[in-house]
Amino acid sequence: MTHALDLSRILETADTEGRQAELAALRGLHPSDIAEVLEESRLEPGEVVEILSAVGNHKAIDAFAQLSMETQEACLEAGNAQTMLRFVENMEPDDRVDLLKAVDDEVREAIMPLIAQAERNAIRKLWHYEEGTAGAVMTTEYAMLTKDLTVGEALSHLRLQAPNKETIYYIYITDQQRRLIGTISLRDLIMSKPYAQLERIMETNLISAPHDMDIEEVAALFSKYDLLAVPVVDKENRLLGIITVDDVLDIIEAESTEDFQRISAVLPFDEEYFRRPFHRLFWSRFIWLAILLLTSLISTTIMEANQDALHQMLALSFFIPMVMGTCGNAGTQSATMIVRSMALGEIETSDGWRVFRRELLMGLALGVSLGLIAYFRVFLQDQHALLGIIVASALLATLLAANLVGALLPLILKKIKLDPALTAGPFIATIIDAVGIAIYFQIAFILMRTFQA
Amino acid sequence: MTHALDLSRILETADTEGRQAELAALRGLHPSDIAEVLEESRLEPGEVVEILSAVGNHKAIDAFAQLSMETQEACLEAGNAQTMLRFVENMEPDDRVDLLKAVDDEVREAIMPLIAQAERNAIRKLWHYEEGTAGAVMTTEYAMLTKDLTVGEALSHLRLQAPNKETIYYIYITDQQRRLIGTISLRDLIMSKPYAQLERIMETNLISAPHDMDIEEVAALFSKYDLLAVPVVDKENRLLGIITVDDVLDIIEAESTEDFQRISAVLPFDEEYFRRPFHRLFWSRFIWLAILLLTSLISTTIMEANQDALHQMLALSFFIPMVMGTCGNAGTQSATMIVRSMALGEIETSDGWRVFRRELLMGLALGVSLGLIAYFRVFLQDQHALLGIIVASALLATLLAANLVGALLPLILKKIKLDPALTAGPFIATIIDAVGIAIYFQIAFILMRTFQA
Repeated sequence: MTHALDLSRILETADTEGRQAELAALRGLHPSDIAEVLEESRLEPGEVVEILSAVGNHKAIDAFAQLSMETQEACLEAGNAQTMLRFVENMEPDDRVDLLKAVDDEVREAIMPLIAQAERNAIRKLWHYEEGTAGAVMTTEYAMLTKDLTVGEALSHLRLQAPNKETIYYIYITDQQRRLIGTISLRDLIMSKPYAQLERIMETNLISAPHDMDIEEVAALFSKYDLLAVPVVDKENRLLGIITVDDVLDIIEAESTEDFQRISAVLPFDEEYFRRPFHRLFWSRFIWLAILLLTSLISTTIMEANQDALHQMLALSFFIPMVMGTCGNAGTQSATMIVRSMALGEIETSDGWRVFRRELLMGLALGVSLGLIAYFRVFLQDQHALLGIIVASALLATLLAANLVGALLPLILKKIKLDPALTAGPFIATIIDAVGIAIYFQIAFILMRTFQA
Repeated sequence: MTHALDLSRILETADTEGRQAELAALRGLHPSDIAEVLEESRLEPGEVVEILSAVGNHKAIDAFAQLSMETQEACLEAGNAQTMLRFVENMEPDDRVDLLKAVDDEVREAIMPLIAQAERNAIRKLWHYEEGTAGAVMTTEYAMLTKDLTVGEALSHLRLQAPNKETIYYIYITDQQRRLIGTISLRDLIMSKPYAQLERIMETNLISAPHDMDIEEVAALFSKYDLLAVPVVDKENRLLGIITVDDVLDIIEAESTEDFQRISAVLPFDEEYFRRPFHRLFWSRFIWLAILLLTSLISTTIMEANQDALHQMLALSFFIPMVMGTCGNAGTQSATMIVRSMALGEIETSDGWRVFRRELLMGLALGVSLGLIAYFRVFLQDQHALLGIIVASALLATLLAANLVGALLPLILKKIKLDPALTAGPFIATIIDAVGIAIYFQIAFILMRTFQA
């Protein structure tokens, strides 16, 4: 991948030996590597199209399919419709629909009439599935046979179908209404007698995904049942398409990047780090930081309202970072654990009561033990028993609250159909901070009045 | 999966119709679902073994392989060696090694002599690969052929090999020294003429993983090249085993759980949430919280050292949550982005200088714009220009520092061979807090002396 390829030579007009050598080197690479070279080349989209056209074979077509959506979009808008046609026609149907949705209307309208009728139908079928569902990531290029064929006939059919199918390792058996009635793996087909009927050997214990299933749940099916592909069906169990494991890997990667961005309060973006323009990176960070800054001013307002207590006992302010930090950490711990367990299907919303009891106990246990540490720190250093009691009991109370909020909020969000991962975000943390400071001063106020009266 | 199965009936001694009905229902399930039912049943390990033995077919054997390692371990220690033998013999070689490493020495020594010689050799071969490397997750059950066979001969061989191989969708071609010289997919085999020689049609542009490659890098190979399996080789390119995509899915899931736990400051653990005993969950959370609490007391000490400034201008303390929160968020943003980009291979350690320049500018841009917001909040509410200038410039300085530390620390950790994901953890955040508070007071001190003198 790190051959010192000189792509600019390929763009030269004179067809020199040097140019041919570069082209040959490029043709020797895996399509994914050609795509990587082009992505990293910082060439203009028009030049990328020119190079792919010069490579000219099936690898160029596969390489185009491996480019990032942004690059594909730029190429499609830069190249002319006739040149781009064969790259677009050979993309996987689901990726093609995503690309055609992304480009300018004129570009789409220029290329659509050129696309073959059958492919246009496939595009139309996929167009309306909601993003993030099984329907939106499935491909319509699967191997389908009828149950009355023999193994030998099935293999002959497959030989004809194979070049246009995304996978032939699972074959789907449908009835005349296109309803899914069985599957058979190529492995089982190879191992069966040539004259056996598919109906006799097909697996009828089917695992399929409804078209509106969330893609994270689809991914969970793959890892639970160790599958290479999952059929997607409509409500009448009619076969609509399949999802293959390589797409699932990409989905898992993208979802996990999104979760990380959410946890770290960056507005989600798809580009690579160095590829995202500075001003757009700035905005996706600034918006969140500004919202969080304004939210954190609630804490400031609470402290201003409690200046009397602070004037009386300035040392109260010294422990604010410790109390807030510890509660924030405890809340994040419980939230992340619950969110992750829900994503892996270990916890359901119906487990709310069990989670509540467990995290109530946990918050008490953690609050008491950490409160003792805090008390001794205050007492040993400042010899100030009242301050120690205030800090320790405030820590216990806020930690208990933060721990429960962290554990239960994801379950509540899930129940009202929001993404539980939102909890892990810093917005909730900032609000918990404000609540924590309010509790802290409330307890300080009560204890100071009780013991100093 | 939610059939109201009554497993206790299967454990009854009398072989009633009811017992047979339950057994039949269990036999009707997918092995992964049988495993799930058993995991959720809270039965004793001995009872799990009894039920699997009662199911008695190949599904029971597959179901055992799908149980969690902890349950497998408990079963192996509870059942007698003779009963457990066929479950253990039919596990995937890599999982079997992990299990045999985990059980008590006596249990291992009881079962090892019963295992067939060939399987014992496979165990010995896999025993010494370091955890987290390609060698430790590979299986030795792959389809291997020689280059001089024809397609027809190859298919006949495969029919014989298939029952014992993890996948036959990729076939590996080796020379007499077992060196990997080519691969061919079953798909290409099916589509080729029966009398063609493998040597003519095999793919020689090979993608393979050295046995000591980190499994995260192996996972990246799968998603880059859309593979179903990757061959693992030694330094002489001899074929040692293969890694299949279903194992990669599990690996990605486990790695991402570990990252989430690290970010949220829980000591990593493997069990499901409700399965981890309370006291162990307590410890994995308490240890971290206590360390973080003690670290956050550095902030307390810095504030105590600066009580004079606070006495002079109590309002300084009101903005500490805002300054610390905002800087923490900015640092987390840059750290998470860089860590994630490094994990996806978008940034290398050699990019340090580029990252530094970009995040220096970013920190300035964010610091100035957020500083202005902070200034106006202080000035509008408190009409206190000096306090506004102190808060705004302290925010700018600490944000700049936090942003750079967040961005560069992962690169530095990677350079000294530590896991960059450590940065995203709260320990670093707590230290950055303390540095931030120190900078805050330093700036307050300088500005107060300058303007109030």
